[in-house]
Amino acid sequence: MSDRGEAAAAAAASPEGDIPPGYRPLAKWSPFGLISGPVYEQRGPDGRVLGFRVSEKHLNLGGVAHGGALATFADIVLGQFEARDYSTVTVTVRLTVDFIAPARAGDWVEGRVEVTGESGDILFAEAAITCRGRLLARASGVFKALPRKRG
Amino acid sequence: MSDRGEAAAAAAASPEGDIPPGYRPLAKWSPFGLISGPVYEQRGPDGRVLGFRVSEKHLNLGGVAHGGALATFADIVLGQFEARDYSTVTVTVRLTVDFIAPARAGDWVEGRVEVTGESGDILFAEAAITCRGRLLARASGVFKALPRKRG
Repeated sequence: MSDRGEAAAAAAASPEGDIPPGYRPLAKWSPFGLISGPVYEQRGPDGRVLGFRVSEKHLNLGGVAHGGALATFADIVLGQFEARDYSTVTVTVRLTVDFIAPARAGDWVEGRVEVTGESGDILFAEAAITCRGRLLARASGVFKALPRKRG
Repeated sequence: MSDRGEAAAAAAASPEGDIPPGYRPLAKWSPFGLISGPVYEQRGPDGRVLGFRVSEKHLNLGGVAHGGALATFADIVLGQFEARDYSTVTVTVRLTVDFIAPARAGDWVEGRVEVTGESGDILFAEAAITCRGRLLARASGVFKALPRKRG
């Protein structure tokens, strides 16, 4: 797929804000991933980065991004680690998010994940959620790989 | 407001499923609380219960409720503790969710919160997220009360 095609698809899928250059839509969006994002990805020299644009729909009563919106993004970032085996279903066992600074409407929020441990079918990962280099949240997750059900 | 009026308002606000008897809409829905819920409340003999109906929009790629949807509900349940002082803004500092069993489209999911500690402007709370008496998730939160900005 051409970069131009990806950018057009990204723009079409996100009427609520510009998508920064280099980002493209995730290969698959779940229903809740779509309404709570949509989330885009970029593969750069420093590895894979996921991002979404905060808009009015993401806000809480305080006028900043809802903790649930950032927690959902964190869950998506944590679950999309580079070495993920997509022949299995990866379910979240535990999700922890530390909220350090607020995100506001218009902010482009980025997430980077690092796998910190594996033990059998259990995987541990941590993520940094940032905006313009400023740390908004740190998240850690415990995941379990389940076999896919037969068709 | 009459119970009939509340029930009508609840039904009108939630085209995606029936609201069980006794539930009424929360006094205020934030934009993200609305799209990730909407969430209803009931005050019964055992205290306050919050609830929402899982629908197609809440699902992940595995066809069950997205971890982010349950985490958002948990954040709302935890932050709506009974003794909350609404003259302040309560922000989430840390949210942890343990996912024990999946929720499916059509499930009515309930949440109950207990305040487990307070220290100055910091509050600790735990929540149980259930469906028909079955434990789906446990959540714990650390919250901080901030003064409201002057008008």
